[in-house]
Amino acid sequence: MRRGNRGERITVIGNGGWGTALALVLVGNGHRVRLWGAFSDSIALMRRERENIEFLPGIPLPEDLELHDDAARALEGCDLWINAIPTKYIRDVMERLRGVIPTGVPFVSVSKGIENRSLLRASQVVTDVIGRRELAVLSGPSHAEEVARGLPTSVVVASRGEKLARRVQRLFQSERFRVYTNTDFVGVELGGALKNVIAIAAGICDGLGFGDNTKSALVTRGLVEIARLGVALGARKSTFSGLAGIGDLITTCFSRHGRNRAVGEAIGSGATLDDVLGRMRMVAEGVWTTRSVVEVARERSVEMPIADQVHRVLFRGKSPDRAVGDLMRRAMKSETEDLG
Amino acid sequence: MRRGNRGERITVIGNGGWGTALALVLVGNGHRVRLWGAFSDSIALMRRERENIEFLPGIPLPEDLELHDDAARALEGCDLWINAIPTKYIRDVMERLRGVIPTGVPFVSVSKGIENRSLLRASQVVTDVIGRRELAVLSGPSHAEEVARGLPTSVVVASRGEKLARRVQRLFQSERFRVYTNTDFVGVELGGALKNVIAIAAGICDGLGFGDNTKSALVTRGLVEIARLGVALGARKSTFSGLAGIGDLITTCFSRHGRNRAVGEAIGSGATLDDVLGRMRMVAEGVWTTRSVVEVARERSVEMPIADQVHRVLFRGKSPDRAVGDLMRRAMKSETEDLG
Repeated sequence: MRRGNRGERITVIGNGGWGTALALVLVGNGHRVRLWGAFSDSIALMRRERENIEFLPGIPLPEDLELHDDAARALEGCDLWINAIPTKYIRDVMERLRGVIPTGVPFVSVSKGIENRSLLRASQVVTDVIGRRELAVLSGPSHAEEVARGLPTSVVVASRGEKLARRVQRLFQSERFRVYTNTDFVGVELGGALKNVIAIAAGICDGLGFGDNTKSALVTRGLVEIARLGVALGARKSTFSGLAGIGDLITTCFSRHGRNRAVGEAIGSGATLDDVLGRMRMVAEGVWTTRSVVEVARERSVEMPIADQVHRVLFRGKSPDRAVGDLMRRAMKSETEDLG
Repeated sequence: MRRGNRGERITVIGNGGWGTALALVLVGNGHRVRLWGAFSDSIALMRRERENIEFLPGIPLPEDLELHDDAARALEGCDLWINAIPTKYIRDVMERLRGVIPTGVPFVSVSKGIENRSLLRASQVVTDVIGRRELAVLSGPSHAEEVARGLPTSVVVASRGEKLARRVQRLFQSERFRVYTNTDFVGVELGGALKNVIAIAAGICDGLGFGDNTKSALVTRGLVEIARLGVALGARKSTFSGLAGIGDLITTCFSRHGRNRAVGEAIGSGATLDDVLGRMRMVAEGVWTTRSVVEVARERSVEMPIADQVHRVLFRGKSPDRAVGDLMRRAMKSETEDLG
């Protein structure tokens, strides 16, 4: 079913699972979509198989999805582009593409993370390299595979003014992909990055054999501290009660597929961080985000007891069991003060 | 490990799973606890086996937990009592106990629900029968079985002034049972009742074979409408971001054990409500709460699209698939307006 008033020309930078899934949504809505990947052999494989075997196996790619390894051709004449590169590679890729990214064309950032050392959010890394652009961020509970399979998904898109967010909403909105707008783009982007720290904590609880009570409380209290840091960094508190906050956090903490939760589970079961990282194929961003988060929280004097315990377990050799004990034994608290 | 400054004398009314689990927490903290049940044979069985075989099988009851079927003796001289009767039986039980409940002694309400027709919350049903009392409500993500097994659990207790809430916090707080206080007792009590409607919707999604994206979005948007109704009924919005709001909602929607989620799942898989209710041993309060909630929402002109669709599916024969479609197809929305 085609819904776009006209086919907009959209270029997706990054042929991982998420970039590919979003490209599929846009093609389904009648837009003219080009998907660019950094590796020629990966694009060649996708062209030959009409499938993203590496990241979205089993899902056919429609013929009208253009696949590119030449960035200049992929980006030429586009009305909008999307950055779907994993956070740790954004800087390198943007350095490489800087000369061919059209000026005056807005972009949508869909990566989740905070760059180490610089402590910049994904969209800030992009503009740090290519200069100021009009931009929106898109986030929310959205496993790529489920989006690609057409399971009902709701996300939120935010921009400084509402105009670009509304445009992006119209581009993506379909019967299976519902898009809400929000004006707090700092909060929407931070929600996606900070959740991964709490996901590791949730995994630790799973590894220790705890139940639903423990994990639900952890997610709830995790949200309180995420929001606290977010507000200190300029986000609006209420954003964390939305899809990019609690929504994404729930998926990440409860889904069996989450990489960050899986890291926590292994550690809760007795593995060391080196063991776990040694045998993972894909990066669990939360491990490094934990470092950034604890550093920022300290700078801003924001209390984050869960992130702090995750940091001690990951990097200081603290036993997970003692970390949970220390969280439970803290001074008796009023929820009213925290929730405000 | 005993923590209470002195052993307080506490009577728990209701020997279901939740009443028994809370009695165990209090005994563990060194209080003198009497547990009362309405059925003599049930209490006799518990006395003989030192176990609550019906509702908490496999968990030994310590010798110093007193078991009673005589309400006058159970309540005599207590410093505090706890109402743990399921909502639909509260009125009958309170009528029966009215003469022996000591005046001037505060109580803690731990039941979750809204009475049909009267639309009163559990604690209001109690005071409707026995008259005004000082009271607190205790809620949060807390499967009785997990509490009884000593898995880490965090709950919230609220009273109009903070004094009673703080006293209840001290009574229950332990290394495995963390208690937060809150001053919004209307919000804390409503959270526990309203979540069951969203849990049925979550189960419907499971029955339809949807994934984590769908369910996380549903829980997030469900929270928005629960909070909206709560505020209209005098609750504080932020309470729904806490343990009695999102915390309890998450457990109920994601746990495999939840009765309300199970009802939804059966219906999402094609069963009718009559089929499902016919084969259930225990009551799924959410079915009846849905009726109350839709009625109250209409009275107060509060928009509750998810509750409304659940109502249509349960009582009007609407197909679950069409209900989800109608939710996804609604006019494009701004999250900012909803979250405020």
